[in-house]
Amino acid sequence: MRFKFPLMALSLEVAMIFLFKLFVQYETDDNILQQTNRTKSTDEFFVLYSLFQDVHVMIFVGFGFLMTFLKKYGFSSVGINLFIAALGLQWGTLIRGILHYHGQTIPIGIISMINADFSTATVLISFGAVLGKISPIQMLIMTIIEITVFVGNEYLVAENFMASDIGASMTIHAFGAYFGLAVAGILYRPGLRRGHKNEESEYHSDLFAMIGTLFLWIFWPSFNSAIADAGEKRYRAIVNTYFSLAASVLTAYAFSSLVEDRGKLNMVHIQNATLAGGVAVGTCADMNIGLYVSMIIGSTAGMVSVFGFKFLTPLFATKLMIQDTCGVHNLHGLPGVIGGLAGIAAVAMGVSDKSTWAMQAAALGSSIGTAVFGGMFTGLILKLPIWEQPPDHNCYDDSVYWEAPGGKNMIIIYEYSSQSQLELEV
Amino acid sequence: MRFKFPLMALSLEVAMIFLFKLFVQYETDDNILQQTNRTKSTDEFFVLYSLFQDVHVMIFVGFGFLMTFLKKYGFSSVGINLFIAALGLQWGTLIRGILHYHGQTIPIGIISMINADFSTATVLISFGAVLGKISPIQMLIMTIIEITVFVGNEYLVAENFMASDIGASMTIHAFGAYFGLAVAGILYRPGLRRGHKNEESEYHSDLFAMIGTLFLWIFWPSFNSAIADAGEKRYRAIVNTYFSLAASVLTAYAFSSLVEDRGKLNMVHIQNATLAGGVAVGTCADMNIGLYVSMIIGSTAGMVSVFGFKFLTPLFATKLMIQDTCGVHNLHGLPGVIGGLAGIAAVAMGVSDKSTWAMQAAALGSSIGTAVFGGMFTGLILKLPIWEQPPDHNCYDDSVYWEAPGGKNMIIIYEYSSQSQLELEV
Amino acid sequence: MRFKFPLMALSLEVAMIFLFKLFVQYETDDNILQQTNRTKSTDEFFVLYSLFQDVHVMIFVGFGFLMTFLKKYGFSSVGINLFIAALGLQWGTLIRGILHYHGQTIPIGIISMINADFSTATVLISFGAVLGKISPIQMLIMTIIEITVFVGNEYLVAENFMASDIGASMTIHAFGAYFGLAVAGILYRPGLRRGHKNEESEYHSDLFAMIGTLFLWIFWPSFNSAIADAGEKRYRAIVNTYFSLAASVLTAYAFSSLVEDRGKLNMVHIQNATLAGGVAVGTCADMNIGLYVSMIIGSTAGMVSVFGFKFLTPLFATKLMIQDTCGVHNLHGLPGVIGGLAGIAAVAMGVSDKSTWAMQAAALGSSIGTAVFGGMFTGLILKLPIWEQPPDHNCYDDSVYWEAPGGKNMIIIYEYSSQSQLELEV
Repeated sequence: MRFKFPLMALSLEVAMIFLFKLFVQYETDDNILQQTNRTKSTDEFFVLYSLFQDVHVMIFVGFGFLMTFLKKYGFSSVGINLFIAALGLQWGTLIRGILHYHGQTIPIGIISMINADFSTATVLISFGAVLGKISPIQMLIMTIIEITVFVGNEYLVAENFMASDIGASMTIHAFGAYFGLAVAGILYRPGLRRGHKNEESEYHSDLFAMIGTLFLWIFWPSFNSAIADAGEKRYRAIVNTYFSLAASVLTAYAFSSLVEDRGKLNMVHIQNATLAGGVAVGTCADMNIGLYVSMIIGSTAGMVSVFGFKFLTPLFATKLMIQDTCGVHNLHGLPGVIGGLAGIAAVAMGVSDKSTWAMQAAALGSSIGTAVFGGMFTGLILKLPIWEQPPDHNCYDDSVYWEAPGGKNMIIIYEYSSQSQLELEV
Repeated sequence: MRFKFPLMALSLEVAMIFLFKLFVQYETDDNILQQTNRTKSTDEFFVLYSLFQDVHVMIFVGFGFLMTFLKKYGFSSVGINLFIAALGLQWGTLIRGILHYHGQTIPIGIISMINADFSTATVLISFGAVLGKISPIQMLIMTIIEITVFVGNEYLVAENFMASDIGASMTIHAFGAYFGLAVAGILYRPGLRRGHKNEESEYHSDLFAMIGTLFLWIFWPSFNSAIADAGEKRYRAIVNTYFSLAASVLTAYAFSSLVEDRGKLNMVHIQNATLAGGVAVGTCADMNIGLYVSMIIGSTAGMVSVFGFKFLTPLFATKLMIQDTCGVHNLHGLPGVIGGLAGIAAVAMGVSDKSTWAMQAAALGSSIGTAVFGGMFTGLILKLPIWEQPPDHNCYDDSVYWEAPGGKNMIIIYEYSSQSQLELEV
Repeated sequence: MRFKFPLMALSLEVAMIFLFKLFVQYETDDNILQQTNRTKSTDEFFVLYSLFQDVHVMIFVGFGFLMTFLKKYGFSSVGINLFIAALGLQWGTLIRGILHYHGQTIPIGIISMINADFSTATVLISFGAVLGKISPIQMLIMTIIEITVFVGNEYLVAENFMASDIGASMTIHAFGAYFGLAVAGILYRPGLRRGHKNEESEYHSDLFAMIGTLFLWIFWPSFNSAIADAGEKRYRAIVNTYFSLAASVLTAYAFSSLVEDRGKLNMVHIQNATLAGGVAVGTCADMNIGLYVSMIIGSTAGMVSVFGFKFLTPLFATKLMIQDTCGVHNLHGLPGVIGGLAGIAAVAMGVSDKSTWAMQAAALGSSIGTAVFGGMFTGLILKLPIWEQPPDHNCYDDSVYWEAPGGKNMIIIYEYSSQSQLELEV
């Protein structure tokens, strides 16, 4: 049983190396021409490389640390996040390339790298819904399936519906959230319906999570603009996202204080709902919607996200039997749907003529639909009793999968001034 | 009373959206021409976007984490920092735009975004002086007033005095510090004259603060060069700042060890005085002063900053009745003044012919003067007993404004090896 | 005795300022022409500035936090890292400039800044081998000597052997590792042969270390490409490194689980071996080796690195009497040698015609040889009993060199919910 995870990981890496040998090559002057409307200028490469690095920080530091809020699950949050993303970016490169180049050789440019990072984002969002309740092997399997489904839906949305979704409110955020919720629903644990003693934060774990929040917040304009057309559209994607995020911070703080006892702020809201503006403005980000409209979208998303955490997540757990550990429905699901709806409205009002409102609606429906079915299918596979899923009492606990630091079995009482400590063996 | 903060935040956001609808629009080829000596090249946009993102990290991660050194005030430090900055960048965009475009429509380009971030920096500096002693509502009010005064002084310095201050030693750092000190002076708490048991760091809070220090240190060359003229000047702003910062690290370590008992290093000095070189070289950063002169400025600032922490801050608290929580006088005040004086000297010696030494001196005087009067005025408003200012015994304590993590009332004794814990209800 | 460190630091800074006055100047249109095959375009400057900043984050945040894994040595890890790097970048600028410009005036451009940061990397790697066992004065001396030797070897490798080593697998990673191991060997402490109670991590110190790991991982493509030729080569250095790193994550996780009891993951492996792919692909990074070959190099390095931590480091400590605190041999030494060997093979197979395989082999031999001899020489100097080396029982303990936070001598028992605490004076 202890060999399953390493052997699957090794087999996958070996397979990946073979597939890369067969299908992947460097971008060269020849094969660059196959790619749509891009000139291969070094300048363009490095403008995009800079945006890629911003996205890269979001994926590995942003998502990774955002999930460290659980007091005993920080190693898994940041560690499995790294594993998933490193696996996912290789698989995403391949599967996306094979689909887009119809089985011909896939040239790897900076756009492929950005898209590879994007494809991992969906899995990392879904990871948030099942955080603490599934094993590394289950995450590995989910990564492979989810990225495959994601690439299919994204192709449908972009190539068939020709829909606008530049910041991927629908294809990444809503998709990732509903996929994760579907998996969490299938893997529902009745034993945890009254919660779990490890499913809470502590003072410093909440501060670690803020590292994630802040890097996500800061670089979100790069996320929403990285694959936008150079010029006006990329510029608008940046400024719309900048102001939408700022607006969602104000409403997230305001409503967090309004819904909590005695007007206090709740760290969960601050860590998550402040980012809802980045998600929700995604679909329209490169459109000429007006800066104040971005701010309306952002404020709405910040507010809705807080309400989601306060009222929907408990309801999901009790009534719908979906345990959403990080509340991804409130950060990615609802704001993603808001983004999709805003996109439909914007196209209907003629702000963009790239697609029709019906096509936008089809894209939203397709993203949610494939996510739910893909997630249920994945959940059923993960439910097979061979994937080392942790029992209820070991949930949200790193020590199941990680060597504990230290190694001695003792109580430590720390003296701050001398930085020495009392140690009581137990 | 619990509704004041959320309702003020919401009203401000609604007002901001209306004002953006009225006054703000995207930068287009037409309105770009109204802006001074800039061509709208995409390349230039993305060179500046990259510098903007560096500054953005400084504002949200740098300032935010730098203030997490207090053992029980990390949520507020990093959380209120985010709130202030998100509010301030919207207000700064508006108020600066209205002043610079004389009430006409304000085009938002990358330079506006950098300046919006800059305007929040002043408030975040002042926040350091009053950290732990004022409420979120008070910070909200201070943000609105301080940015307004800042924009006025900056306009005076740049447009009337035509003074050089590319890295804003005077207009941001000295201004922010003396504004904050003036507020702290008005809000003096006699009850805390012997300190407060929460006003200290602990081991991990000091490490969190180093995240802030390092990102500030790393990206300071971008801060000082972001709005410099392209070419030689921007290049010089980068390299002067790089070497000034390096020099201030050496003197900060040396003098920290010299002034402390038994030659030990003090974390407060390392977290702050190592940055003094970035502040002090600001005014001259783009001038042809010679790299060794940058290093002299940096070394001096590192030394002066340590002396300030060791001797001035305690004196301020006891004699001047100004309680400066983070010691912003030592990181931003004194080094800002050194920067202003270096600027006067440099201009007097003919290194720059952009302004005269008298105009530089006027800029320094104006920055300190408006800061002190603006800060006193703000302090008087904040002193009104309606803003939920925390009582002395609740200072430096997150639990006044934040839901505590966990929620159960118990002593937790942690066993490291098993990562389980003893819990004693109390 | 308490004056040695500050006086040496101050004297060095004063000397540095004088030497900068004598030898260093801004890059101008005139002196730029002296530099090899570069045009002074602002665009090129800012492409490189962006890569420089990525490297800068790696040096100060990456290396600094990676070493905070020790439970009581975080201040020194991140603090002495900052000190060394700030000193080293000034000294590296000078010594490298003097050698390359043959004593003429040294122009400072972005390439010099990148190389200055690179030269500090060698010392930071060696720091990892002796972490916790030497004093700040010893580190200061080591910095000055090691950078001097590094610059000499690098000159030999690049100018005499004309060898390819774009990502510096040999000249930085292998060199830094073997230099540090040689110092650690000379400074062997028999008293610590059974370990030390402080030489272990705790839960949160391991999370702090992951901040370092992730920023190193994210920006490694920039490290390997920063001084590559613009165009194809820089592009390839980026994509080869991206995929090599991803592959090494998979094998690091797989073999960590394989070699540990009950298939658990070990944080030390995850923090370090996931980066081995970046080190090992360094020498070949800009060559046309094929993406799958990068992945083979990365997978191999990830595997070898885990084996090194599991089997070699204990062996080194017991048999070779070399105590390698951070296991730099496994992260930088072995993967650096793999990189050198891959370079020899690639050149032998005609992938690059920049040098011959014999010259590549000479470069690898020279890097390891000068490192070992330089390290032994440095170790002998550091062994002089005048440098305040800490006694065995004070190793891995910040409180020897840092003021303890707090200052009161008491046991603190923390109540999470109220965030108040019981304090028992002792």
